[in-house]
Amino acid sequence: MKVGIIGASGRMGQELVKVAFEEMEHNKCQLIGASVRNSSYLLDKEIINPIENKSIGVAYSDNIENIIKNADVIIDFTGASYSLKVAELANKYKTVHICGTTGFNHDEFDRLTEIAKQTVLFWSPNMSIAIYTLSMLAEKAAALLGESFDIEVLEMHHKYKIDAPSGTALMLGKSAAKGRGINFEDSKVLNRSGSNGVRQEGSIGFAALRGGSVVGEHSVIFASANEKIELSHTMYNRKAYAENAFKIAYWASTQLPGKIYTIEDYINTK
Amino acid sequence: MKVGIIGASGRMGQELVKVAFEEMEHNKCQLIGASVRNSSYLLDKEIINPIENKSIGVAYSDNIENIIKNADVIIDFTGASYSLKVAELANKYKTVHICGTTGFNHDEFDRLTEIAKQTVLFWSPNMSIAIYTLSMLAEKAAALLGESFDIEVLEMHHKYKIDAPSGTALMLGKSAAKGRGINFEDSKVLNRSGSNGVRQEGSIGFAALRGGSVVGEHSVIFASANEKIELSHTMYNRKAYAENAFKIAYWASTQLPGKIYTIEDYINTK
Amino acid sequence: MKVGIIGASGRMGQELVKVAFEEMEHNKCQLIGASVRNSSYLLDKEIINPIENKSIGVAYSDNIENIIKNADVIIDFTGASYSLKVAELANKYKTVHICGTTGFNHDEFDRLTEIAKQTVLFWSPNMSIAIYTLSMLAEKAAALLGESFDIEVLEMHHKYKIDAPSGTALMLGKSAAKGRGINFEDSKVLNRSGSNGVRQEGSIGFAALRGGSVVGEHSVIFASANEKIELSHTMYNRKAYAENAFKIAYWASTQLPGKIYTIEDYINTK
Amino acid sequence: MKVGIIGASGRMGQELVKVAFEEMEHNKCQLIGASVRNSSYLLDKEIINPIENKSIGVAYSDNIENIIKNADVIIDFTGASYSLKVAELANKYKTVHICGTTGFNHDEFDRLTEIAKQTVLFWSPNMSIAIYTLSMLAEKAAALLGESFDIEVLEMHHKYKIDAPSGTALMLGKSAAKGRGINFEDSKVLNRSGSNGVRQEGSIGFAALRGGSVVGEHSVIFASANEKIELSHTMYNRKAYAENAFKIAYWASTQLPGKIYTIEDYINTK
Repeated sequence: MKVGIIGASGRMGQELVKVAFEEMEHNKCQLIGASVRNSSYLLDKEIINPIENKSIGVAYSDNIENIIKNADVIIDFTGASYSLKVAELANKYKTVHICGTTGFNHDEFDRLTEIAKQTVLFWSPNMSIAIYTLSMLAEKAAALLGESFDIEVLEMHHKYKIDAPSGTALMLGKSAAKGRGINFEDSKVLNRSGSNGVRQEGSIGFAALRGGSVVGEHSVIFASANEKIELSHTMYNRKAYAENAFKIAYWASTQLPGKIYTIEDYINTK
Repeated sequence: MKVGIIGASGRMGQELVKVAFEEMEHNKCQLIGASVRNSSYLLDKEIINPIENKSIGVAYSDNIENIIKNADVIIDFTGASYSLKVAELANKYKTVHICGTTGFNHDEFDRLTEIAKQTVLFWSPNMSIAIYTLSMLAEKAAALLGESFDIEVLEMHHKYKIDAPSGTALMLGKSAAKGRGINFEDSKVLNRSGSNGVRQEGSIGFAALRGGSVVGEHSVIFASANEKIELSHTMYNRKAYAENAFKIAYWASTQLPGKIYTIEDYINTK
Repeated sequence: MKVGIIGASGRMGQELVKVAFEEMEHNKCQLIGASVRNSSYLLDKEIINPIENKSIGVAYSDNIENIIKNADVIIDFTGASYSLKVAELANKYKTVHICGTTGFNHDEFDRLTEIAKQTVLFWSPNMSIAIYTLSMLAEKAAALLGESFDIEVLEMHHKYKIDAPSGTALMLGKSAAKGRGINFEDSKVLNRSGSNGVRQEGSIGFAALRGGSVVGEHSVIFASANEKIELSHTMYNRKAYAENAFKIAYWASTQLPGKIYTIEDYINTK
Repeated sequence: MKVGIIGASGRMGQELVKVAFEEMEHNKCQLIGASVRNSSYLLDKEIINPIENKSIGVAYSDNIENIIKNADVIIDFTGASYSLKVAELANKYKTVHICGTTGFNHDEFDRLTEIAKQTVLFWSPNMSIAIYTLSMLAEKAAALLGESFDIEVLEMHHKYKIDAPSGTALMLGKSAAKGRGINFEDSKVLNRSGSNGVRQEGSIGFAALRGGSVVGEHSVIFASANEKIELSHTMYNRKAYAENAFKIAYWASTQLPGKIYTIEDYINTK
């Protein structure tokens, strides 16, 4: 499988390059190109295999069409409008497109949906298979445990994260609300600080911690009169996202076009 | 619903009496009797309602037949041979029998199975609905996460517990093994101390902590190269078992005889 | 040691009565009386020894002077103005006063300070020795770990708690601020929800969870670029407060008057 | 400060090189050389600055004498006999030696002690400042909490770790034993699995979990009848060791020879 990486200069892009070489060590794929912006210091520099500390004879490039044309699969964590351009090119060359980009507007997403009918397109705002597993478990737990268990969601992230709670925490809360059969928007309490009286029956509370370089920690807590269940996920390393992107790429390349594939589709094949 | 408690003098029995009065406050049931051994200091003493600090006009008794005859449901946490006698009497009077007794031998269990065809009989070695929920989640998680996640089970209990790991920890490990599709007996590693080399692929490790009065804490851990999922349960108070016994009693009294009902049957009605 | 309990009808008072009987089993003290308000259903009812399920021949009373006169030590978890009256009577009869009451105003506290010069008076708003230990550890950790570790405080309490964060969480945050040498009021961030930008350098964030009957869980978290230290306390049972009150009572009865003793004085004798 | 790295090809060595470049970005030091074995694929290859993806004009070398001669400080995570050779050369050129090597025998350690009288030598088997802080906190907690709290130590590491419990877990247990005033060797219980009866009063139990790539997680737990204190450390990333080595290097280069400096000396200056 020939893989191209779109957007290789950022933190996520560099993880993808690193993982690409590890996958190549196991003969699972071949890295055929990696794109950077034309302002990047990496432009035209040779891609270094960090395992062998030597060049692979291909340079970082800003010619994404060339990469997309030559690849079987492209992995793309860039920006919304840029990713749409990538999707058009992937469609032109029938290249499988694994997209981890967030922030598409309604029109952009509609166009992706059209393209997905013609070319295999996978999209997920979060490439952690484990987080989606946790989300399913939270839904099931909420359904089984019933109303005598109060639901709270806790997350911790690094000090540079600018908003709280995290999108993933909200997603987990939504899953729990779905399992319990209540409306999420009516139930969520984003902040408990202050004198707010007793906990509102059926509410789902959120709490956020910030500090250090914590990559991402989430817990869904179910507390009753005498027991507590806690479903937690810790991300030690962003590399998990990159590794999952490759796992998904192998899977996606065996699928047929038809719809935007999501991580649920991938998990449900298990 | 008229409730009788069999075996009221022990720690669990006193929790059942306490919960019975709380349920009576909410008009959910009526406590019509509680049995103790004929050597108990409680024998013939009046049952005190702790909420009102006054007698209910019924004394602790060693006449279990009388209690079983007058009750709609009996709750019984005693010993194996004694519980079988209780089951026979429950069968005679068609009293619903909620049994939390452990240690039945093969013949005793066969007889219970016969009785359950004629009289409603619920039996569970652990009355925590949350623990069974955790067990289901562990099975599902093991199935979804797949082989790149190593499975470990951790438990902590009070300093008086004489064996390790706990039966509940082993049950959780079995569920995880089932989800992953591996043989539990071949996979379990009960002790990691010493120089045992690298972790055996596919093994399920157990670790036990002992201290203080910890009622029961269990975690099933799934660890991969970059992520960890932890599914945990904390029992704060034995009262949960007593409260669940009453919840199950209400449910069981609406069932028909046919088989020994278990906590899975109860949970699956949700 | 003859012990009197002031305020025996509430949740804390009933724990104190229960623990008193356990201590009496070990011949550590003798319960000589317990007061309730004159509107209490317990008034004039005999105090029941729950271990033996029989009366001790003394009734709950609203005559606190009589109790204070006959006791060597009184344990008092009531209200601010009531506790001041208790302190005056304790001073009159030179009875050691263990006071867990909160909410004294400035004048009341001044008067307690005066009384403490004449009669042994111990006062703590939180009777958990472990919580104060955690507070000392948090201060020391903050001092040793230095500025590369960000500090956050997390707490979880039962669903009936009306304010957040808990007073104990704030106390832990103050200790951490002291250890780090920063001003607590300038550093605290009580709520991280919303789009607030990157974490302010040197801030101490608080997060609160509410649910079930959780008695009290607190964590002080120190997170750096690559590591995390977490110092946590779990209170399983309010009984700990009652047991500590008795431990402190034994200790306090060996002290001389002079100042209001606090839990730090007690811990520092270890 | 001119820094040389001894043993740059392993996992730890490559972390040191990476951190060296980050430190250089902040003008804190200058990397003047890095040694590898003469069989390494890195030998004679240029050292790449990963931030700028370009060579610094110096190659990996097996000439450690040259590096030690030119450096103000060397950082050395190699093997025992090799590190002794490094120490002799550091002594010859009066280069500050930061040594993270383990496994010295008695004679080797004696020789290091001699060298330390003439040249600044820092040695620690674990470069985590936070772990040593945790160790101090565990000692203090054990002293303050007293005998009513049972002590247990839990650790989790990656699946490749061959022994259990970890050396760090044992160190933490020793600190707790010291704080409590008991003999560690008599108190430790390395394995609780099986039917071993009730917990022995005063024992310190250990439990080990293995899985995934967990870098290192340790908890010291104090459990009493109603409370639990847990002091935990999570290492997210081996980079912490490398970063600490540089912090210590800056500090050590301001010290005078005299004794083998340890991490306690470094922490106590705070």
